[in-house]
Amino acid sequence: MEKKNISIAGAGLVGSLLSIYLAKRGHKVDVYEGRPDARKKNIGGGRSINLALSDRGLKALAGVGLDQKVLDKMSIPMYRRVMHDKEGNLSYQPYGKEGQAINSVSRSGLNAMLVEEAEANGVTIHFEQRCKAIDLESATARFENASGESQEVHADLLFGADGAYSAVRKAMVRTDRFSYSQEYIDHGYKELTIPPGANGEFMMEKNALHIWPRGNYMLIALPNPDASFTCTLFFPYEGNPSFSSLDSLAKARAFFDEQFADALALMPDFDEEWENNPNSSLMIVRCFPWTRNGKVALIGDASHAIVPFYGQGMNSGFEDCTALNRLMDQYGDDWAAMFKAYEIERKPDGDAIADLAMRNFVEMRDLTGDADFLLQKKIEAKFSKKYPTKWTPLYSLVTFSADVRYSEALALGKKQDGLMAEIMAMPNIHEIWDSEAVETKMLALAEKL
Amino acid sequence: MEKKNISIAGAGLVGSLLSIYLAKRGHKVDVYEGRPDARKKNIGGGRSINLALSDRGLKALAGVGLDQKVLDKMSIPMYRRVMHDKEGNLSYQPYGKEGQAINSVSRSGLNAMLVEEAEANGVTIHFEQRCKAIDLESATARFENASGESQEVHADLLFGADGAYSAVRKAMVRTDRFSYSQEYIDHGYKELTIPPGANGEFMMEKNALHIWPRGNYMLIALPNPDASFTCTLFFPYEGNPSFSSLDSLAKARAFFDEQFADALALMPDFDEEWENNPNSSLMIVRCFPWTRNGKVALIGDASHAIVPFYGQGMNSGFEDCTALNRLMDQYGDDWAAMFKAYEIERKPDGDAIADLAMRNFVEMRDLTGDADFLLQKKIEAKFSKKYPTKWTPLYSLVTFSADVRYSEALALGKKQDGLMAEIMAMPNIHEIWDSEAVETKMLALAEKL
Repeated sequence: MEKKNISIAGAGLVGSLLSIYLAKRGHKVDVYEGRPDARKKNIGGGRSINLALSDRGLKALAGVGLDQKVLDKMSIPMYRRVMHDKEGNLSYQPYGKEGQAINSVSRSGLNAMLVEEAEANGVTIHFEQRCKAIDLESATARFENASGESQEVHADLLFGADGAYSAVRKAMVRTDRFSYSQEYIDHGYKELTIPPGANGEFMMEKNALHIWPRGNYMLIALPNPDASFTCTLFFPYEGNPSFSSLDSLAKARAFFDEQFADALALMPDFDEEWENNPNSSLMIVRCFPWTRNGKVALIGDASHAIVPFYGQGMNSGFEDCTALNRLMDQYGDDWAAMFKAYEIERKPDGDAIADLAMRNFVEMRDLTGDADFLLQKKIEAKFSKKYPTKWTPLYSLVTFSADVRYSEALALGKKQDGLMAEIMAMPNIHEIWDSEAVETKMLALAEKL
Repeated sequence: MEKKNISIAGAGLVGSLLSIYLAKRGHKVDVYEGRPDARKKNIGGGRSINLALSDRGLKALAGVGLDQKVLDKMSIPMYRRVMHDKEGNLSYQPYGKEGQAINSVSRSGLNAMLVEEAEANGVTIHFEQRCKAIDLESATARFENASGESQEVHADLLFGADGAYSAVRKAMVRTDRFSYSQEYIDHGYKELTIPPGANGEFMMEKNALHIWPRGNYMLIALPNPDASFTCTLFFPYEGNPSFSSLDSLAKARAFFDEQFADALALMPDFDEEWENNPNSSLMIVRCFPWTRNGKVALIGDASHAIVPFYGQGMNSGFEDCTALNRLMDQYGDDWAAMFKAYEIERKPDGDAIADLAMRNFVEMRDLTGDADFLLQKKIEAKFSKKYPTKWTPLYSLVTFSADVRYSEALALGKKQDGLMAEIMAMPNIHEIWDSEAVETKMLALAEKL
């Protein structure tokens, strides 16, 4: 195999992981990152959205031997959703079968580990190098440091792993026949914190993702290793209630007291955080093609940024790495053919997870408070447990089935919805859900999948 | 009313017409156009796509007293579609009722007239001024001339009438919560010419739009005042046949000889034009919001670029002017409120005409060669003629009903499609289409609209 000089724009999660894959294949890899080295400077805050690492991400980490290390060192397994109603009553929904969990991980911790591993594998990471211009014909990029000094970097191949606002993609957007969309949803988010208790303990169930579903909006909370919870309010920008309508701290407090009283009671810093943490927007990016001239390719959020509601943003970007690694085996030195195969394979999956993530927003904020919905999920879970080869719930297909493509999962999920509508239409389903009649009907319906 | 200093980026069709509307209201209007003055230099060629001016465009021209002038001086009415099959047999489909026509006009001729009229109304048009930067907060724009000299222009209000690749919109795309998409379709186009005959005569029926429908692709021809026809091949970029597969002149000639023999026989310059005229791409642009800070607004292709298949690109942009003019009456000096009302009213209509234009592509290239489709249109036309208040065909709603919104037309058209499916499902419909039974059923169905 021919060794290549490869540039990667972006040392975020996907860029760092990709660099490890490429370095392990013997290529010379240079990664250029606009932000400073997080190991030296503390960055950000109030705009993280905790990550939920699941099977697709773990499979990609396993490809470079890092899955167990991440699980051991920085993950909190979350086995179920805990739903909080207005009165503080709790209900529960397991994510999968016994022992199956999604994993709360901190973005900064995981990113730092991947950067360390990349360097240990011989990757050179250049921090504080902002991408200013790209030549797509020659895979040349111009980077500028904080002092305004710029360098031209020519490589054999250039990957844009530079996120939802990708500079590499911006160069592509200006080329003929490049389809592109950035779609802002009506909701934004604001982060709040539930700190540890006086004795350093978790103030709510630790191994769970907490949801306060309220129809058109919701609050969620994910556990952190320091026993705090990062809470995120997903909320409309306009209308009533909305970020616009809660235009004073007093109104915000009153609103939380009415809707999220049990959470508010655990937020000593609510006032300060409400005032100081930004309202951040949520964007979906779609584009095609993902590669140009057999030399430049987009990966991760740069090619398919999605909303966070399925916990699949990082996982789908990591899965791009898994796919690329397999295709590199298959195509050897023919990078142009490999890039074509990559974009043709991954584009439908990027579109599918974008749709799935929006569907899951509706499910989380609205349906997890709905008795019919919860019953349907219970019936599916029970049936799937007894007949695991006949039925895998959509959530499990997306989250725990790393070998099923997102596009396949979405198609199967739509079929399942149709079939479950027949089950839920059975008379007295809330009474007979556990009966043999329902099981018999499920068995018949499952044949149609 | 307060007089404003208004900048318009773009002296194309919509920018020039808008400038006339604004100047007639007493504002001081400066228009900045990147291209040279077409009256002094000949521009372009091979990339025009003839315009089909219809009632919405005429209504907007009438608002500044220019409709009759355009009809008299530079239009050729086209009363029907003439379909050419492979053997050169012709069939016919009228566009509307007797006397209704769409009008073939030349882009450059109409643009030159509008620029003259703008200047006559006191508008200053600055040519060869490329927009290089926009400040959306202060409605300031920086324009650069061919020698690289640049000027900052501050105004009270700035309109981006700078087309599908709008520089004003580009500044908006970079702002938070601005949704944007550019979608290239799989087809592109190439222009070809049927010149006048030896005695300056039209070589095909003059007052018609000619179509060679061929399923996945088509050739069309529109008449010009010099007795030539501008022909446009709408053709896939990839696949078979496609611009890719016809990779030599010999293949292209053989293909035309097989598919468009009667047209090819009238194209003495085919070889040269095939080799030299570009394959141009077709893009749909959608975005929102269309205005920022009550100071900057997009109009025409800058806010809603569409594919050309309904002949509504210019007409929809002109209709933006009609809407703005009505809203300016309504809102007086409150431009911020007016801009909000404008984008909220016009966005659904921009989306609707974008969808309608794609639907018409399928209709033109595929269905106009389909006996069922043509029969359906015949039944609708007959019924509509007898009961004009009960049924207006979709094409007429879009083309000849300037007071019906595009979004209403699309919604009504979808309902009509459902009802006509019932008619077409009647046994032996091809024999009984002219019968009382069909009329009775149409009368009943029309009640549901």
